[in-house]
Amino acid sequence: MTKRIIIDTDPGQDDALAILLALSVPDELEVAGITAVAGNVRVEQTCVNALRICQLAGRPEVPVFAGAAGPLMRPLHTAEFICGADGLAGMALPAPRQAAREVHAVTYLTEVLRASVKPITICALGPLTNIALALRMAPEVAARIERLVIMGGARDLGNMTAAAEFNFFVDPHAAAVVFDSGVPITLFPLNATYQAVASPARLAGFDDTGHVQAQVLSMLRRERPGGASLGGGEGHPMHDPCTVAWLLWPELFEGRDCRVDIETAEGPTVGRSTIDWWGRGGQPPNAHVIGTLDADAMFERMALCVRGLDDKVTEKAAE
Amino acid sequence: MTKRIIIDTDPGQDDALAILLALSVPDELEVAGITAVAGNVRVEQTCVNALRICQLAGRPEVPVFAGAAGPLMRPLHTAEFICGADGLAGMALPAPRQAAREVHAVTYLTEVLRASVKPITICALGPLTNIALALRMAPEVAARIERLVIMGGARDLGNMTAAAEFNFFVDPHAAAVVFDSGVPITLFPLNATYQAVASPARLAGFDDTGHVQAQVLSMLRRERPGGASLGGGEGHPMHDPCTVAWLLWPELFEGRDCRVDIETAEGPTVGRSTIDWWGRGGQPPNAHVIGTLDADAMFERMALCVRGLDDKVTEKAAE
Amino acid sequence: MTKRIIIDTDPGQDDALAILLALSVPDELEVAGITAVAGNVRVEQTCVNALRICQLAGRPEVPVFAGAAGPLMRPLHTAEFICGADGLAGMALPAPRQAAREVHAVTYLTEVLRASVKPITICALGPLTNIALALRMAPEVAARIERLVIMGGARDLGNMTAAAEFNFFVDPHAAAVVFDSGVPITLFPLNATYQAVASPARLAGFDDTGHVQAQVLSMLRRERPGGASLGGGEGHPMHDPCTVAWLLWPELFEGRDCRVDIETAEGPTVGRSTIDWWGRGGQPPNAHVIGTLDADAMFERMALCVRGLDDKVTEKAAE
Amino acid sequence: MTKRIIIDTDPGQDDALAILLALSVPDELEVAGITAVAGNVRVEQTCVNALRICQLAGRPEVPVFAGAAGPLMRPLHTAEFICGADGLAGMALPAPRQAAREVHAVTYLTEVLRASVKPITICALGPLTNIALALRMAPEVAARIERLVIMGGARDLGNMTAAAEFNFFVDPHAAAVVFDSGVPITLFPLNATYQAVASPARLAGFDDTGHVQAQVLSMLRRERPGGASLGGGEGHPMHDPCTVAWLLWPELFEGRDCRVDIETAEGPTVGRSTIDWWGRGGQPPNAHVIGTLDADAMFERMALCVRGLDDKVTEKAAE
Repeated sequence: MTKRIIIDTDPGQDDALAILLALSVPDELEVAGITAVAGNVRVEQTCVNALRICQLAGRPEVPVFAGAAGPLMRPLHTAEFICGADGLAGMALPAPRQAAREVHAVTYLTEVLRASVKPITICALGPLTNIALALRMAPEVAARIERLVIMGGARDLGNMTAAAEFNFFVDPHAAAVVFDSGVPITLFPLNATYQAVASPARLAGFDDTGHVQAQVLSMLRRERPGGASLGGGEGHPMHDPCTVAWLLWPELFEGRDCRVDIETAEGPTVGRSTIDWWGRGGQPPNAHVIGTLDADAMFERMALCVRGLDDKVTEKAAE
Repeated sequence: MTKRIIIDTDPGQDDALAILLALSVPDELEVAGITAVAGNVRVEQTCVNALRICQLAGRPEVPVFAGAAGPLMRPLHTAEFICGADGLAGMALPAPRQAAREVHAVTYLTEVLRASVKPITICALGPLTNIALALRMAPEVAARIERLVIMGGARDLGNMTAAAEFNFFVDPHAAAVVFDSGVPITLFPLNATYQAVASPARLAGFDDTGHVQAQVLSMLRRERPGGASLGGGEGHPMHDPCTVAWLLWPELFEGRDCRVDIETAEGPTVGRSTIDWWGRGGQPPNAHVIGTLDADAMFERMALCVRGLDDKVTEKAAE
Repeated sequence: MTKRIIIDTDPGQDDALAILLALSVPDELEVAGITAVAGNVRVEQTCVNALRICQLAGRPEVPVFAGAAGPLMRPLHTAEFICGADGLAGMALPAPRQAAREVHAVTYLTEVLRASVKPITICALGPLTNIALALRMAPEVAARIERLVIMGGARDLGNMTAAAEFNFFVDPHAAAVVFDSGVPITLFPLNATYQAVASPARLAGFDDTGHVQAQVLSMLRRERPGGASLGGGEGHPMHDPCTVAWLLWPELFEGRDCRVDIETAEGPTVGRSTIDWWGRGGQPPNAHVIGTLDADAMFERMALCVRGLDDKVTEKAAE
Repeated sequence: MTKRIIIDTDPGQDDALAILLALSVPDELEVAGITAVAGNVRVEQTCVNALRICQLAGRPEVPVFAGAAGPLMRPLHTAEFICGADGLAGMALPAPRQAAREVHAVTYLTEVLRASVKPITICALGPLTNIALALRMAPEVAARIERLVIMGGARDLGNMTAAAEFNFFVDPHAAAVVFDSGVPITLFPLNATYQAVASPARLAGFDDTGHVQAQVLSMLRRERPGGASLGGGEGHPMHDPCTVAWLLWPELFEGRDCRVDIETAEGPTVGRSTIDWWGRGGQPPNAHVIGTLDADAMFERMALCVRGLDDKVTEKAAE
């Protein structure tokens, strides 16, 4: 049975791979829409990037919506130092032929959630501003979200600061709203996603003769700004694709139910996700937190999926 | 020249008088719409109350929109202990014949601000949740707001806690967003509005043979729950009408430009508005803060305005 | 019956008058010792100033102890802009002939409190660092303090920031320790002490032919740096002498029992004393907070006391 | 050359082993004194425990001083659930024949630091209250501390809460004072000390025919309250002995210079030590933080040292 999903995202190279992965398995995942948010780069650019990726995947009809231009309370921090000026450094994608929809991403979210007969799963790959605004504009839609699969937070060390991961650092208030909402959550914190490094061995399954694969390989092989990854190891960590991979192959992941608290107060811990992995606080869990994953298998299967996109694009061209 | 205004409100008895006052002077104030927010009572009720007040004023055509059901980050606190179960204790108003519009108050705000040829002034009488959400959904509308005239905050003692006034206590995060927005603000804190007590002498100008005046008098004369007002003195403080009165008769008010900071961190000062009345911090002002007002003149003129509403209702009935 | 007191102080001109006042009534107040703390100026200077004032009063035998050089947690802020480089701007006092005792003020406090047969009252005129350290070094001495009479905090506007009065701004953590200690407290916040302005009319009782009075008058008449007082009115507010005056003439003061909370978190409210004057929070009171005082009578009586010091000095010289 | 040290401690079983280790190598470490602090159990008991351990080691002449009975700002939390009612569960030690010195631990610290010709290294094994009070009472002694070797904090997960390790959770304000003091610091956070688990294999070097060794073995083999260790693995983590081991055998440890910030604000992160392991914040380091250690070698050498204590006790008895 096809699962209906929305991808809330700020592409971002690893966002791009997550979207491609989701678009590659239409029998399993129906991407109802993509909502763009400010994060890795400004929202005007993340919106264009979402459109470019849909076009690359041969799926220009997927509706894309521009959302919040900045966090609920803090000034916007972006990550051009990692993602490049256009957010997709390493890829060379043409301008999109289609345009974003006129409706605001938050309005779209509230309307589609209210209207959908099926509950909808949301993969949230950037700061959680759009989701939090939707929950505040229309609290009743919380019950219409089957699950939020979120990339964000850090159980151990952060990457934006020693305490905080980028997405939650950018909008800790939105994250706090989301973790307080009662919506079922699966969380991929940095300590999990740093296991999904695109090492040379794991890239063996990608074939750069295909158009989509070539773009993906170019992105995965790009030089690292500032040298080696924080987590050590050669290659870029593919944080965001873990969320879609978990929807497809949950057997590759292990986690546990935990209490997650988000620090919103300014100071050295702002944006910290306190993940009560050992259950010290006795608070009821509000998320299923992933701890380990089989990255080799995940990359192998992702390579097959992306190859499938190339095959479909070729088929279409042949028709 | 008529000034175009929107009233964002959580009626509430003093909100009711503020709305009546605004509706009584159509040559001076054009009430484009009323947006309801959760505050004194839940938003379903504040919305119904806004409709009831428009009906009382003989202006059922004024569009009313339901907005946020609760604050950005904190659980909702309401004030039934002051306002009664329906929010308008002391008045006896029939159910409204008209209904609220279908559009969300925040969507209305963003759309009307974008579309209006004239800049719009907003009188904000409740927690600032709707305004903050609109500013976050569509940051570009900040430049379309001529001014925010806000009842909220306390330079000296609060009324909800020793530190905080009710509106800012209920949604300090929304208040922080608003005071950080760059929109011109006139602020009526408690130390100003406690001067506007509806003392018996000041009620002399109201005449209870008129229908609207009778409702207002009944509300103003209701027994105080818990006895005397915090500010001392006999009678209810009419906080919210000060905002509309300032638009009409600015010569009755004195204030100064100040820096205002809102405390969002939980603890004894949550919701505190730090008003730098003596300019100790050297930060640039972000609000014009009212310090003193001529309450006798204000009540005298308000009585005339409310009497005018009765006259109009009578005229209409005669036609 | 003579009351035994210790004065913890950071002189400071108004501290000087408070000390002179206490030394002028040996039949009523026995000043067991003076403990100096960093505040208006650095502790080396406040210690010297305490010695200079004892010498001026003809009481060089009163033991003076140097205490904490800075607050518990924050960097030291001083007030030379008000007090002048030596802390006693307006007075011209010779260097002290006696020296401070070798024992640390905190060690003295713990030892004298443990040893004294009579419970001891402490007048605390500066940041509360010494008192807090003594309570932490030797918690059992809390029960030996009859009462703390504290100048500090603000119910309404602060003087150091819009939120905070100087003493509590300098060491909010110490203030929090003290208000959490269970020791009986009488508090003089700014809203009370700003009533004790040394207006020209109130200086009529001082006679500048006497040596001590001449010094006091010179201090009280000095030009105000930055012009008029924050509280308005001509003349310097005599914050600290209120504490000693209350011990002598409680009938001149009115107050009520309140809950007082101290904000220690950095931000616009750091150092704020939230004084629950209207009992909104329902927490048990931890201080008797003065609200109003008869300043005319207080200055009249202070003038008599200071004149008495001159008489005693003259007598001694005559002997 | 003998290094002069003071051990500030709240024994606690792993504190006991740290003290025994330090007392076993008089040619390398001169234990000038032991200062007790409230932590694992109340200070009266940690003081008695320090005396019992000196007696067990045949060193009853080592001076022991009782210090702070509780943290600077927060109420005291203790750890009887781990340490047992007397703090040394698993050991069976007689009451001490000698008594603690009369001087307060903080007074001792300030005096010995001022007087010592040699700079002194302090091993701090409990909450840092005594050290912080000494630094505040006598800031000039900071320059007399050669180094603070601290067990505390967590780079990854905490043990008291998900965010905080026990010692820093108990007194975060003291920890903040210490890390802000400029004193050279070597820090052993939980992620390092959880590597020092007393596994059965590592206990092979201890021989229970010796009196001291028998006590140590009994302590190390005691049943774990609540089952397996948080860090996983069989056996108790020996957090505190790492500090003394590092003084003796630095070659067994690896670390790096980092910025460490302590969270003092109440909330889910209170007591968190944010350790900037990857240097994200660009702040200058204030501690050398240990990341890995050779636990097998450390336990082997500790066993030899403790055996040496037994030999000395036997020798003395033979004399």
